[in-house]
Amino acid sequence: MAAAPISDLLLSPVPGIRLAATSAGIYRHGRPDLCLVEMAARGTAAAAFTTNALCAAPVTVAREHLRRAQPRYCIVNAGNANAGTGDRGLDAARRTCAELAALAGCSADEVLPFSTGVIGEPLPVERVNAALPGLLASLRADAWAGCARAIMTTDTVAKGRSTRLELDGRTVTVTGIAKGAGMIHPDMATLLAFIATDAVVAAPVLDALLRECLSNSFNRITVDGDTSTNDACVMLASGAAGNPAIADAGSRAAVALRHALSDVCVALAQAVVRDGEGATKFITVTVEQGRDESECLQVCHAVATSPLVKTACFASDPNWGRILAAVGRAGIPDLDASGVQVFLDDVCVVSGGARSGSYTEAAGRRVMAQEDILVRIMLGRGSATSSVWTCDFSTEYVKINADYRS
Amino acid sequence: MAAAPISDLLLSPVPGIRLAATSAGIYRHGRPDLCLVEMAARGTAAAAFTTNALCAAPVTVAREHLRRAQPRYCIVNAGNANAGTGDRGLDAARRTCAELAALAGCSADEVLPFSTGVIGEPLPVERVNAALPGLLASLRADAWAGCARAIMTTDTVAKGRSTRLELDGRTVTVTGIAKGAGMIHPDMATLLAFIATDAVVAAPVLDALLRECLSNSFNRITVDGDTSTNDACVMLASGAAGNPAIADAGSRAAVALRHALSDVCVALAQAVVRDGEGATKFITVTVEQGRDESECLQVCHAVATSPLVKTACFASDPNWGRILAAVGRAGIPDLDASGVQVFLDDVCVVSGGARSGSYTEAAGRRVMAQEDILVRIMLGRGSATSSVWTCDFSTEYVKINADYRS
Repeated sequence: MAAAPISDLLLSPVPGIRLAATSAGIYRHGRPDLCLVEMAARGTAAAAFTTNALCAAPVTVAREHLRRAQPRYCIVNAGNANAGTGDRGLDAARRTCAELAALAGCSADEVLPFSTGVIGEPLPVERVNAALPGLLASLRADAWAGCARAIMTTDTVAKGRSTRLELDGRTVTVTGIAKGAGMIHPDMATLLAFIATDAVVAAPVLDALLRECLSNSFNRITVDGDTSTNDACVMLASGAAGNPAIADAGSRAAVALRHALSDVCVALAQAVVRDGEGATKFITVTVEQGRDESECLQVCHAVATSPLVKTACFASDPNWGRILAAVGRAGIPDLDASGVQVFLDDVCVVSGGARSGSYTEAAGRRVMAQEDILVRIMLGRGSATSSVWTCDFSTEYVKINADYRS
Repeated sequence: MAAAPISDLLLSPVPGIRLAATSAGIYRHGRPDLCLVEMAARGTAAAAFTTNALCAAPVTVAREHLRRAQPRYCIVNAGNANAGTGDRGLDAARRTCAELAALAGCSADEVLPFSTGVIGEPLPVERVNAALPGLLASLRADAWAGCARAIMTTDTVAKGRSTRLELDGRTVTVTGIAKGAGMIHPDMATLLAFIATDAVVAAPVLDALLRECLSNSFNRITVDGDTSTNDACVMLASGAAGNPAIADAGSRAAVALRHALSDVCVALAQAVVRDGEGATKFITVTVEQGRDESECLQVCHAVATSPLVKTACFASDPNWGRILAAVGRAGIPDLDASGVQVFLDDVCVVSGGARSGSYTEAAGRRVMAQEDILVRIMLGRGSATSSVWTCDFSTEYVKINADYRS
């Protein structure tokens, strides 16, 4: 689907952040597969990781290191998830952190490792470590696009976004990159995202901002579990902008920064859906008139994850019965069919729980033929609203996942 | 996949039960689409229905009728789900019950209506009702196979099973039929099952037996929600065998009958999986060494519903990393990776949470190339066990569901 090719990725440097990417030989054919992100000393960081109980080795190590120190470096490889690799995998992740720390003159706890790619294969740690001096020597402020490319697995396009805002008279930059080729666990390693700003932000505030941004972006594109072995989202605040430190999550400056961070996260999350494996459609599922946001989200997810709804979208078939059935099985207590309405864009399809009198198949087909489809569901029992983004489910999806790894 | 074609369905008549099937013109081209099941007076019945909040009209009516009377008739149509049809749909279902009751000389409450097929289209109730006199006139004991065929939608084979047992010196028969073409909601109307016996069983005992059988059969083939708008499973006990009434669910006779009913339900449930839309493989997921059955089932379902595991099975690819990731995201608290083992049939693939030292890709490929695959997962934390049956996920599945209804 349409998404910016790497040459169009115009990503703004973030003062206090330098990056480098290279081909370490984890992938064959010299494809970029390793990148390094460096943050100025005295920056702050926040991170969220997969909740998968059998998480990858780098996730375990990154969590440990984050508990002990504010990070200075993120080292990220594609092509190998270092998951399902047991103690040997933990050892490999730790060796890379130690090696980088020795070269950079910091503590190993200040290095966070990340991996994405095939699971169960030993990480070629010698190749990773051999590339570290070159990476350190080539760190630059304007290498975001190259890093966006170096973290790709089954992605067909590199994903990044920048924005700027004013904070107490200072211009502040937010830039983020992400990888992920579909919401349905492309293979273990769904999603990695790195978002950086030069704002001065206290660590607890940055952590709160990260959680809020996640709930409106990457957590809105989950499909069937959402917790791969390697998922991670990192926010770095270098502090180079010199604004008055944001120490209160409710402050005006914190709210302004949250909007900017959220814009970047939403753009990255939507780019992941548009690049979804085999995707031909971008579908927004919005549920309105719920009692609370939680039940709206429950219905959103039931509809957005339904293979039947997704295959109907692939076929451009306004099979609204499948939408209605997904709403019904979402587990909403005491849902009254007579209050339920369904719209495809502006076309009212279901009213009072049955086909709308004004609906015509031709009108439904017109909407479903579009590349972007809005499915709006009104529950008729409150004023809460939620949205989730998904893509269609194509024969190509099955082919990609049947062929991958072979 | 391999399943008995209709001509091979050898189903034993059940004394006290008569059936008839016909083509009422709901489907085009004269395909059978309507059947009637009659039970002798003084029989007992139990039923379980979809938990979908937007259930079909016949489900609502059948529930009402069951609260008021023991049923004498089940009238079942394919080709139209009578779901998403609002008050008009309820009216249609009630009209059919009233018409049949008038013709048969019973109360409308003694008639249970069932529908399966496309959602949102008005039920052609006149065609259904016009066929009722013919159905009543042609009721016979040996029409099970024809009825198995008349309830099919996207099924490629009719599904039925019979068994016999001795109860206090009397030979008792159990015969069942089911429709369903895959666990992933073929279209709203996943599953209908009708199981009959001539045993004398008190209604509360029959209800308990039904719940136990369901939990080990049809509830083991669920995938992504399991609650279509029309799902229903009915058990009828005609009482014609004349055995001493089974009035205690813990009695020896009740246990014997439960085994027979369960055998029939499991056979039907497995037949549904083997006939799964686009299925080329039959996969048993067994989880052992769990703390309790509930957590075993949780892991079973996470693995059995994973599109990545299912596409790997389609590709005959021993991609055990996908299995491990599904285990990890199942939501088991404090799961210790080092205790987890995974076997493909007898091949140990994962040990201590990482690839087993003895594992070879060739051995994994050998198992995955089979039509029947056993995925065995040991959690290493208890002695509970559970199994779920599923099928693979093929390009054909997407094609079937993208084309259906068009």
